[in-house]
Amino acid sequence: MRTSPATETYVPPPVIALLTDFGWAGHFAGSMKAVILGINPAATIFDITHEIAPQAVEEGAFILGAVIPFLPEGAVCVVVVDPGVGTRRPAIALRTERGTFVGPDNGVLSAALDDEHRAAAKAPGRAGAIAVPPAYRAVRLSNRRYFHEPVSNTFHGRDIFAPVAAHLTAGVPFHDLGEPAATILAFPPWAAVRRPNGRLAGRILSIDHFGNLVTDVRTDDAGGALMSVGVAGLRIEGLSRSYQDGPEFVAYAGSSGYLEIARRNASAAAALSVRVGDAVEVEPAAPPAGRRRKA
Amino acid sequence: MRTSPATETYVPPPVIALLTDFGWAGHFAGSMKAVILGINPAATIFDITHEIAPQAVEEGAFILGAVIPFLPEGAVCVVVVDPGVGTRRPAIALRTERGTFVGPDNGVLSAALDDEHRAAAKAPGRAGAIAVPPAYRAVRLSNRRYFHEPVSNTFHGRDIFAPVAAHLTAGVPFHDLGEPAATILAFPPWAAVRRPNGRLAGRILSIDHFGNLVTDVRTDDAGGALMSVGVAGLRIEGLSRSYQDGPEFVAYAGSSGYLEIARRNASAAAALSVRVGDAVEVEPAAPPAGRRRKA
Amino acid sequence: MRTSPATETYVPPPVIALLTDFGWAGHFAGSMKAVILGINPAATIFDITHEIAPQAVEEGAFILGAVIPFLPEGAVCVVVVDPGVGTRRPAIALRTERGTFVGPDNGVLSAALDDEHRAAAKAPGRAGAIAVPPAYRAVRLSNRRYFHEPVSNTFHGRDIFAPVAAHLTAGVPFHDLGEPAATILAFPPWAAVRRPNGRLAGRILSIDHFGNLVTDVRTDDAGGALMSVGVAGLRIEGLSRSYQDGPEFVAYAGSSGYLEIARRNASAAAALSVRVGDAVEVEPAAPPAGRRRKA
Repeated sequence: MRTSPATETYVPPPVIALLTDFGWAGHFAGSMKAVILGINPAATIFDITHEIAPQAVEEGAFILGAVIPFLPEGAVCVVVVDPGVGTRRPAIALRTERGTFVGPDNGVLSAALDDEHRAAAKAPGRAGAIAVPPAYRAVRLSNRRYFHEPVSNTFHGRDIFAPVAAHLTAGVPFHDLGEPAATILAFPPWAAVRRPNGRLAGRILSIDHFGNLVTDVRTDDAGGALMSVGVAGLRIEGLSRSYQDGPEFVAYAGSSGYLEIARRNASAAAALSVRVGDAVEVEPAAPPAGRRRKA
Repeated sequence: MRTSPATETYVPPPVIALLTDFGWAGHFAGSMKAVILGINPAATIFDITHEIAPQAVEEGAFILGAVIPFLPEGAVCVVVVDPGVGTRRPAIALRTERGTFVGPDNGVLSAALDDEHRAAAKAPGRAGAIAVPPAYRAVRLSNRRYFHEPVSNTFHGRDIFAPVAAHLTAGVPFHDLGEPAATILAFPPWAAVRRPNGRLAGRILSIDHFGNLVTDVRTDDAGGALMSVGVAGLRIEGLSRSYQDGPEFVAYAGSSGYLEIARRNASAAAALSVRVGDAVEVEPAAPPAGRRRKA
Repeated sequence: MRTSPATETYVPPPVIALLTDFGWAGHFAGSMKAVILGINPAATIFDITHEIAPQAVEEGAFILGAVIPFLPEGAVCVVVVDPGVGTRRPAIALRTERGTFVGPDNGVLSAALDDEHRAAAKAPGRAGAIAVPPAYRAVRLSNRRYFHEPVSNTFHGRDIFAPVAAHLTAGVPFHDLGEPAATILAFPPWAAVRRPNGRLAGRILSIDHFGNLVTDVRTDDAGGALMSVGVAGLRIEGLSRSYQDGPEFVAYAGSSGYLEIARRNASAAAALSVRVGDAVEVEPAAPPAGRRRKA
């Protein structure tokens, strides 16, 4: 349902999406857009967000994952959460069937890869080197022809990533950006750890604008309406369908496939004094008696 | 003065304006834009704001009213302040001579209607059902062909409102979105209550980025330069022409037709410790002696 | 490196960049975009920022200067930091080889002028009247045909600056906007003062989203890797190449040519309790011994 009869023969304009921790203050986001439009004035630019917590690489990767299923065909994503800017960390571009992704090679592009590939990274919360899947292509950005010179030490978003994305949408071949990369850094798949007793040990990955807690517990793993969740000493029984359905604190299936926790008409994060990285524990619903006997 | 000779023969690209309480953090605004461009890559999207106070439906309606007189012809507005998402509250689209408006049916689209229609809603600050005026058209959004499936319980901005708006700009007929709606929820017109003694009892509807207080007192009702206004124990005499004209606190005709209160080079809201909903009282200027005798 | 072979024959769409202190709350930025698209639906609008500190005219001018070298050809910048809105301060448009700039005549357009021209303004932090350079053109905005009527007293961004910019991109001749202006207000060039003892007395001009301090000390003046800088009782020895290179606090060459001060993985502004305008002092590196003897 992503095309409309009226648009089927339309040649889409090049779309560039921006995702950074630069915030809206200062000239950062604006300078990236200026550079892009200077190279390709036909580009359609949109912001995913610039409010990733400063230097929170994994949160940036997670938010990218929330948007990827909805990206327009052929979009180029510029993803810059880059505490290592100016050091020797490589710059990379990755092309998959979901789009093209440009950014530092520090794990922030993880969500462009499939869970099965990312499973080779073992330590939760730490990016590990994995092999670029054969169906994908990756290059280290080394062809300075597509940079904006002079390249500063502290703002590769403006000087490397934005101009590379703009040149891609203007017709530059992907392989011309640099030498092929065989590996890329990625975080392990986001999923709570299943303990021997069946409980799921998860953590808070992001806190949204409303103060709702986004966890790494997959809704499918939580086992439906009868599960219960513990966070910061609070226990919530059952899965709700909406923010207004149930008691003051509710757990519900978030819009990205992960369990979320909200306080009705208020901020759960403030009420519970929790932060990104804090633990949540889920007791999955027992399967129906009939199914249990079969197993 | 909204067209220019050079553009008169130009066929305008489809314009979609977004107004939500999602904030800029997280993927919310970005996911809506991704969905829109996936359906209609030719759309021009712009943000009215994403910083309506969380779940403040009436504030969202008021800010929409401030922008409506300036919308480009044919614009589609996606307006999502939606505390009832996931409950049975209907989703609606409204087409008027001012544009097309898509959102939850909870009053947030009020400003797309004329004051004379909204007068049927009686309780200030509460949305009531009013008849859709004969010259307008409204539909309940029920044709799932134009949704982004699967529809989540908590993010209809991405799954219903954004894709419906995109399909409209791509040529889908309005009536194809669902069944006609005979009524729509709306807030009463924003206007201070005139008491028997002639004073106007108003309230603060919004507080802007500078800390200026935007009231529901219509400048025309306040009666010109000689009125006086009371707020939080402070009395301000007379209407000023600019922020820098007059004493520390000034009352002036805001750019949307309502009385506003500012503190020079500082935040009036912080200085007076007031919030949205707090009372303001205006003593209108006495009409000129000649006119008073005539009455 | 700002064009690509694929785009050389492309006729660029008209680009309008917005830079204000309006913030993202309320309808301000949205109303400006609505007006622009109503006049020229083909305009590509992008935000530099709306988060200049309220009424901080010089900070707005400085941030404009950071973006100007990256603007796409032919861009029109609408720059509105305007504490004098509604008073008699003139509205102005300036055309240079770098682009066209529209805003109040209060110094906020300074960065569109060359340092040699701005040197006629003497008092640091205060805008002075300078002659418009012969190669540039400036007009006072007086032709109401290109305003959005009625013009409010408090929102010239929507009623004057945005519509004038839109009309320019739609083909209105520059000289038709009003009468020629012979002078324009500008701040002196940003540069630390060199004292008789060779030290540079500078100040903090802006604090970015990460809490990094942006100073008015030009990196070229600081003299390279061996300089040292003092701020708020702290002394930092040497120039670092990146945020992660060196001790907790580092000084480095910022991406706009000015010396910046950062705290590794944290906010330098919060740690040092400094604000815009606070002093920094730089002891430039001594030139190499060999060169010193020659002099």
